Amino acid sequence: MPHIPLPEHLPGITGLLEYRQDSAAPIRELTQVILRGPGTLSFAEREMIATVVSHANGCRFCTAAHEAVTNVLLGESETCNLIRADYETAPISDKVKALLYIAQLTQKGGRYVTPAAVDRAKRSGATDLEIHDTVLIAALFCLYNKYVDGLATQMPDSAEYFNALGERIAVSYGRRPEGYEKPLV
Amino acid sequence: MPHIPLPEHLPGITGLLEYRQDSAAPIRELTQVILRGPGTLSFAEREMIATVVSHANGCRFCTAAHEAVTNVLLGESETCNLIRADYETAPISDKVKALLYIAQLTQKGGRYVTPAAVDRAKRSGATDLEIHDTVLIAALFCLYNKYVDGLATQMPDSAEYFNALGERIAVSYGRRPEGYEKPLV
Repeated sequence: MPHIPLPEHLPGITGLLEYRQDSAAPIRELTQVILRGPGTLSFAEREMIATVVSHANGCRFCTAAHEAVTNVLLGESETCNLIRADYETAPISDKVKALLYIAQLTQKGGRYVTPAAVDRAKRSGATDLEIHDTVLIAALFCLYNKYVDGLATQMPDSAEYFNALGERIAVSYGRRPEGYEKPLV
Repeated sequence: MPHIPLPEHLPGITGLLEYRQDSAAPIRELTQVILRGPGTLSFAEREMIATVVSHANGCRFCTAAHEAVTNVLLGESETCNLIRADYETAPISDKVKALLYIAQLTQKGGRYVTPAAVDRAKRSGATDLEIHDTVLIAALFCLYNKYVDGLATQMPDSAEYFNALGERIAVSYGRRPEGYEKPLV
């Protein structure tokens, strides 16, 4: 049961965004800019960062939601399964592995992000802006995860809820990214 | 040295907000709404939450900045010193102690916020909205702390920088809160 009265039909973050709409507006806006705005990381790659961080924070709602979005964007669910198990051996590029590592360190604590971790990303082709965005996406999902779990929001039982949510969020991507249909390797 | 090239004269969060302005806008807006918007928690109480969370995350820049703001709002620095050492014995109300405890649990991880911690806050007079806002402020400062340290932003050497920053931020509070001059006990 949530710690505060939230609309029963709106689980996870959705009830919180309804509960206080003046704080919800800039949270939505930041998410739109950093996950769905122009950028050289594909939408699926950004959603992978959101998924890995939410998983590390143990936030079931956000992990399920952003894994579902990633799956819709990739058109398959195997990659996300492998990333969740161990992204270092998953079928993704070295650059994305290096960025997921930075995201994971950011989740643990900002000071864990070492020059070596950043060098690894740069050597694999990551730009400064991609490194910046990776840290900011990771930090934003720490906000989301703590907000969602800190108020003990409701977690839907069914996978169907998340499949439908994934489809709905994926639609909010204005334009499918370059290489959307291709594997990300 | 920062992990990405940031303006040298803008340390901590200030350089990051300049680096990517389209993501900075909603971050500023969320901060304005939740820290400086209308509410029943005093501005100093909200800044205390920011300070305690930043301190727990080991973020020197944010801790120094928000401690400085709190000091300006309170007109003294002793309370913040005592809160940083142990807020349970600091000269603040039972309600604020209970909310700082919730903030501390949120920093540790959303799932650490127990019904008992929330009951304690409610018994000491905290409203649902105050509990909501406490969790959201704590979550927002986890974002800030991870963003600031994850990119290894510059930390000013002098206390003067933070005193001046505290004064400048305090001015952005449109109206001094009720009980501003009174001790918060």
